[in-house]
Amino acid sequence: MSTAINKYIGQHQQRFIDELFDLLRIPSVSADSKFRNDVLEAANFVRDKLLAAGVDEAEVITTAGHPVVYAEKILDPVLPTILVYGHYDVQPADPYELWDSPPFEPVIKDENIYARGAADDKGQFYMHVKAFEAMLQTGGLTCNVKFMIEGEEEVGSENLEDFLQENQQRLKADVILISDTSIISTETPSITIGLKGLSYLAVEVTGPNRDLHSGVYGGAVDNPINVLCKMIASLKDENNKITIPGFYDKVVALSEAERTALAKAPFDLAAYMQDLGLEAVDGEKGYSTLERTGIRPTLDVNGMWGGYIGEGAKTVLPAKAFAKISMRLVPDQDSDEIARLFTAHFMSIAPATVKVKVTPHHGGKPYVTPLDSIAFQAASMAFEEAWGKKPVPTRDGGSIPIVALFDEILKIDTVLMGFGLDSDAIHSPNEKFGVFNFVKGIETITLFHKHFSALKNKL
Amino acid sequence: MSTAINKYIGQHQQRFIDELFDLLRIPSVSADSKFRNDVLEAANFVRDKLLAAGVDEAEVITTAGHPVVYAEKILDPVLPTILVYGHYDVQPADPYELWDSPPFEPVIKDENIYARGAADDKGQFYMHVKAFEAMLQTGGLTCNVKFMIEGEEEVGSENLEDFLQENQQRLKADVILISDTSIISTETPSITIGLKGLSYLAVEVTGPNRDLHSGVYGGAVDNPINVLCKMIASLKDENNKITIPGFYDKVVALSEAERTALAKAPFDLAAYMQDLGLEAVDGEKGYSTLERTGIRPTLDVNGMWGGYIGEGAKTVLPAKAFAKISMRLVPDQDSDEIARLFTAHFMSIAPATVKVKVTPHHGGKPYVTPLDSIAFQAASMAFEEAWGKKPVPTRDGGSIPIVALFDEILKIDTVLMGFGLDSDAIHSPNEKFGVFNFVKGIETITLFHKHFSALKNKL
Repeated sequence: MSTAINKYIGQHQQRFIDELFDLLRIPSVSADSKFRNDVLEAANFVRDKLLAAGVDEAEVITTAGHPVVYAEKILDPVLPTILVYGHYDVQPADPYELWDSPPFEPVIKDENIYARGAADDKGQFYMHVKAFEAMLQTGGLTCNVKFMIEGEEEVGSENLEDFLQENQQRLKADVILISDTSIISTETPSITIGLKGLSYLAVEVTGPNRDLHSGVYGGAVDNPINVLCKMIASLKDENNKITIPGFYDKVVALSEAERTALAKAPFDLAAYMQDLGLEAVDGEKGYSTLERTGIRPTLDVNGMWGGYIGEGAKTVLPAKAFAKISMRLVPDQDSDEIARLFTAHFMSIAPATVKVKVTPHHGGKPYVTPLDSIAFQAASMAFEEAWGKKPVPTRDGGSIPIVALFDEILKIDTVLMGFGLDSDAIHSPNEKFGVFNFVKGIETITLFHKHFSALKNKL
Repeated sequence: MSTAINKYIGQHQQRFIDELFDLLRIPSVSADSKFRNDVLEAANFVRDKLLAAGVDEAEVITTAGHPVVYAEKILDPVLPTILVYGHYDVQPADPYELWDSPPFEPVIKDENIYARGAADDKGQFYMHVKAFEAMLQTGGLTCNVKFMIEGEEEVGSENLEDFLQENQQRLKADVILISDTSIISTETPSITIGLKGLSYLAVEVTGPNRDLHSGVYGGAVDNPINVLCKMIASLKDENNKITIPGFYDKVVALSEAERTALAKAPFDLAAYMQDLGLEAVDGEKGYSTLERTGIRPTLDVNGMWGGYIGEGAKTVLPAKAFAKISMRLVPDQDSDEIARLFTAHFMSIAPATVKVKVTPHHGGKPYVTPLDSIAFQAASMAFEEAWGKKPVPTRDGGSIPIVALFDEILKIDTVLMGFGLDSDAIHSPNEKFGVFNFVKGIETITLFHKHFSALKNKL
């Protein structure tokens, strides 16, 4: 059967890629309101392709923010049901000047598709649409399928919780399947079993009530940029431990056995540094690079600005300085609690010479997939059959805030069957996705359906 | 005689203001190349007004950057000669949204002229043009006058040194008179006897060779913004002393007597803080607010940026972070040496995880006017006659880099007879200049001419 499916995939591969290109041409940037219409256009495009692929019904469901595309194909209520989650929105593409080709004009170079969203997540969720088509057209569909493709993942899925609450019946399923993560390499397939949570905040430091001449006032009036630098610098100690009181209280320490298992994932630090153009890496003392990204919470300034940032020199002592700061969380840290702890601490370290405003932006809870679940086993078998190797379970620094929500609201296990590579430069200029990964991913997804239904029927 | 001059000033006051408005309407921002033509237009405007005021000759002299306007009126070679320096270029006006009225559409509100450059320095140097006209038209001109009005003061007067070298003969004079500073208040006239030097640098911190996903790499790859914050924070210790090795070595400490004399200047800290909307001020331990701005060197971040600074949230670990940093210097610090010390120190504190680039932008030497000079005495007498009070000598945090150059290259003393107020918001939105200050300043300038020639003739 899988041969018929693979044959179909091979015959229609070029069309699959052409369709993906059409989707990648739509600049559906959810963070920036000037792309609002493009985001809607992308939603409509996804609905139309799902209908074309053969679902019973598909609709663009409005939310308080960007819409959710929902579709389903119910073969037979007694069959197991797979709920596919993905997102059609993308990160902002700037800085545009660093792209070798325009971010919304996809091109193939060296067997890679270059475009914003190629890997995150248009290229990855679209594999499910095409896998579904291939199974349906070849009579190889063995599970009911539901699609929930949202448009706010890159801005924290703020309206998805309400959507889940309001659509619990409709979203009933046996497993949630998501392709929005990476494998270690095409030689070493892997499945992400751990996802970090996120707490994202915006801070504003205000000094004088107007921009001042740095000569007339400098040295006597505290400079908001200098103050913000000092406050941010104090958020980590000399061992790169985060200094926010209570920050680590709920962090679940891994056993030596777990750390040893994770350490089995092949990793070449020299190659890693060379790829990034770095001469040294640094992070929390006492942990390896993979542990720093995978199992330890982190804090990064994602953006900072203040004063004169134009051409030439301006001797100004600015009234305000700003920063966007995010923390990646691990089980059992709670993003709301961390946001509260950060806010209280940040206010407490502000000197009397400034006023500080902290605005929680968005967050998400961390999640870990149970290794003994049928869902994980089916995914592992699918990879093994398609790639000829057992996938390595890994823990990823990335966050998919709503995975924890699925667990909490829908009570359904999630499997993160991603096919990207860390070198895909998601969220960066020149984002790419391998043509091989795209095609192989479609095949692997069809095999997940096969093994999942088989394991279910054994019960 | 001065009555005839004052009568003339009174009769032509409205025209003087109208002419100044025409000049203020020209957005001659020297820092931004897109205003290049406006800068040239301003130069031509100044030349034409000088010719109209009655100089023998006036020309716009090209330099490697923006041109210098030179003009002169030689009554008689045996008479003393006053060289007037000023600048027709202005600071960038952004942030535009904080202006109550457009920066290049001057308006009078509450007896103040609001516009970019109203006080710094168009309104102030133009007083000399009109004072000259008033003296010439009423037969009250007693000195030869030369005008050197440049267009690069706000970007460090980079080409003026060459200009001075090439025009030493032409610029011969007995004193250089500059109005580009402030008085304490209209009740308490003052003369700035000390000017700070400046050393302005741009720094760039580079981490990874591309923007990264802060989830995938955060915690394992050092973040250039966090690193830059830490480096900047370390530039001052807990007493707000600058930590750059050797920074204070050449600072001339004031005697207790000098500090006591400066402390005589009336200063209301509560009013100062209220004007700035501050609940506290802070600065170098062991010095008063006036000493921090007047006699102590300082360091300020004038601008900083990195990562995502647009709308919404982007979870990026940026490749680069940038800052513009300036230090205000006092006698006998040398701006080139300080730039070298800063650069060496900043490179030395950079961790191995980043590459740092430091680019010296521009600088200027500090200067102090000799109180026993005829020039200072004439200025003091002019203020006393016009304002009814002896002016207080003050030391100002501002920098006019080329004053030290005049001393060095032309060997001529400079008198800083400024008429602005600290509340004029120079370099900020809603810059203003009092109509009273403008008119009174013109009168004071004519009295300086009178007393300077009288004192010279006594010799």
